[in-house]
Amino acid sequence: MRALCKAVLVLALSAVPALADPLPSWNDTDTKSAIIGFVDRVTDPASPDYVPPADRIATFDNDGNLWAEQPIYFQLIYALDRVKERAEADPSILSTDALKAAAEGDLETLAAGGIEGLLEVLAVSHAGISVEDFQADVNAWFDSARHPTTGMRYDEMIYQPMLELLSYLRDEGFQTWIVSGGGVHFIRAFAERAYNIPPEQVMGSAGPTEYVDGQVMKLPGIDFVDDKEGKPVGIDSRIGKRPIFASGNSDGDFAMLEYTTSGDGPGFGLLLHHTDAEREFAYDREGHVGVLNRGLDEGPDRGWVIVDMARDWSRVWP
Amino acid sequence: MRALCKAVLVLALSAVPALADPLPSWNDTDTKSAIIGFVDRVTDPASPDYVPPADRIATFDNDGNLWAEQPIYFQLIYALDRVKERAEADPSILSTDALKAAAEGDLETLAAGGIEGLLEVLAVSHAGISVEDFQADVNAWFDSARHPTTGMRYDEMIYQPMLELLSYLRDEGFQTWIVSGGGVHFIRAFAERAYNIPPEQVMGSAGPTEYVDGQVMKLPGIDFVDDKEGKPVGIDSRIGKRPIFASGNSDGDFAMLEYTTSGDGPGFGLLLHHTDAEREFAYDREGHVGVLNRGLDEGPDRGWVIVDMARDWSRVWP
Ligand SMILES: [Ca+2]
Ligand SMILES: [Ca+2]
Repeated sequence: MRALCKAVLVLALSAVPALADPLPSWNDTDTKSAIIGFVDRVTDPASPDYVPPADRIATFDNDGNLWAEQPIYFQLIYALDRVKERAEADPSILSTDALKAAAEGDLETLAAGGIEGLLEVLAVSHAGISVEDFQADVNAWFDSARHPTTGMRYDEMIYQPMLELLSYLRDEGFQTWIVSGGGVHFIRAFAERAYNIPPEQVMGSAGPTEYVDGQVMKLPGIDFVDDKEGKPVGIDSRIGKRPIFASGNSDGDFAMLEYTTSGDGPGFGLLLHHTDAEREFAYDREGHVGVLNRGLDEGPDRGWVIVDMARDWSRVWP
Repeated sequence: MRALCKAVLVLALSAVPALADPLPSWNDTDTKSAIIGFVDRVTDPASPDYVPPADRIATFDNDGNLWAEQPIYFQLIYALDRVKERAEADPSILSTDALKAAAEGDLETLAAGGIEGLLEVLAVSHAGISVEDFQADVNAWFDSARHPTTGMRYDEMIYQPMLELLSYLRDEGFQTWIVSGGGVHFIRAFAERAYNIPPEQVMGSAGPTEYVDGQVMKLPGIDFVDDKEGKPVGIDSRIGKRPIFASGNSDGDFAMLEYTTSGDGPGFGLLLHHTDAEREFAYDREGHVGVLNRGLDEGPDRGWVIVDMARDWSRVWP
């Protein structure tokens, strides 16, 4: 069946004289030609860099790479909204300084509480609930919450040029995976709708879970942090193959890009540089999200391609 | 492209008057008709039990379900072989009773050492090596090792009827996943060759790993036991969807089958009962591998189908 299909497609494609631009929201810069040149090389059976479809693994960071992450990770906004809502129903849950700060949206105090404070917030907003119910709640939140400065739905603050890149890679036989420091259950709630990426191709940070009576329940705590060296570790654990294409926007993605570009065969590293204060946000070396230093310093020498979002993208949102 | 391909396939298939038997090594018993009846129901768009392809998740235990597991798990034989080999080069590594027992193939003493002893054996045979080098070593072992009673290669002691079932399900739009208590890196070394299942659809028990200089290294210890309640937990973590078809052979699979058959939609549970002492091995309620009690007692009332391997299979090996 597959062979038949392939044969028919070859015939069908040979009748098409010219393919449409696969990346219409990317300006015609060296960034775009580097991406297309790489994809052409690894998909051309006559090329020395040819990679068979089964090994065309592409991995994408999520926050700041497929969707926005300012003024703070959207998942944290969800968590704060939920703590606030639950405290309105039952004020006694605000039993710690971190939870009080969360309910008030006081990020400074929350940050001062460090990881302990964050875990308290996650325990209220992300635990004691089945995975299915949690994801239904996340989607209810998407329906009602709006971004403080753009007024947009959070799940529409996704990058049109990256949607085109995902789609282009899939059309060329790649598997497109999300490898995110964000929570795996949170991202899976919207990744298929937003990015056309199914749950089984989403990995992320995760808390413990427990199987009880036919349901998987979310428990408090964090089991796996899918950031920095955790990204190649998670990729090995879930995919079991070294990617040949990796895309990120912060130094949390450095190890993933290094892993991707240090195999024996071809490997492509892409870093988004947030340079567009007008259409999106401009930030890099400092701040509390998406800090990018080592990637800017060492990326070019490693052959990684840095996307200048203001210059390389003709549009940002879908 | 996909739509075009689908249209062509519909045309091509409508020209085929009758489909060949998808399960030729299964005898024409009620077991075979139950499997085919379920697949027909969930793939027929006019059926109330129709499941779209994206949700056709099938999960398979490995030991005793896709390949044999007697006289003991094959991965343990690999581990003992490697401890013995390394001790020949450097006898000083036999620093504990468990390691001495392993090198002598003395399973009773090893078993008496419990989990601590097993971890010592795994630390010698499964750690301090990159994932890539480990898998090359596993494949070198497959090339030289032979089963003590059948004389067969271990990676050929796979069940022909299960290969047909995997292939049939894939042809019907299912994803076929391995969910094994065995080690994930060990199974991935041969699963694509043996079962046509790629690494990214293999989950199993796992030790910690570490990313160092472009390589993922295996460390001593066990992080995740993909058995009993660990199976639905692993399925949620890796796939993020409830399966609609699950197949196993021991009470270690009970939770996976329960999870699969307790969703809102259709779900199929299959349990292999090892009844064939002549062609394979006969065992169930007692022993050190593949113990099946609760499944035999409760399975039928839960609607699970029990495969009587002697009666339902016309052949065992490929
Ligand atoms: Ca990021
Ligand atoms: Ca088993």
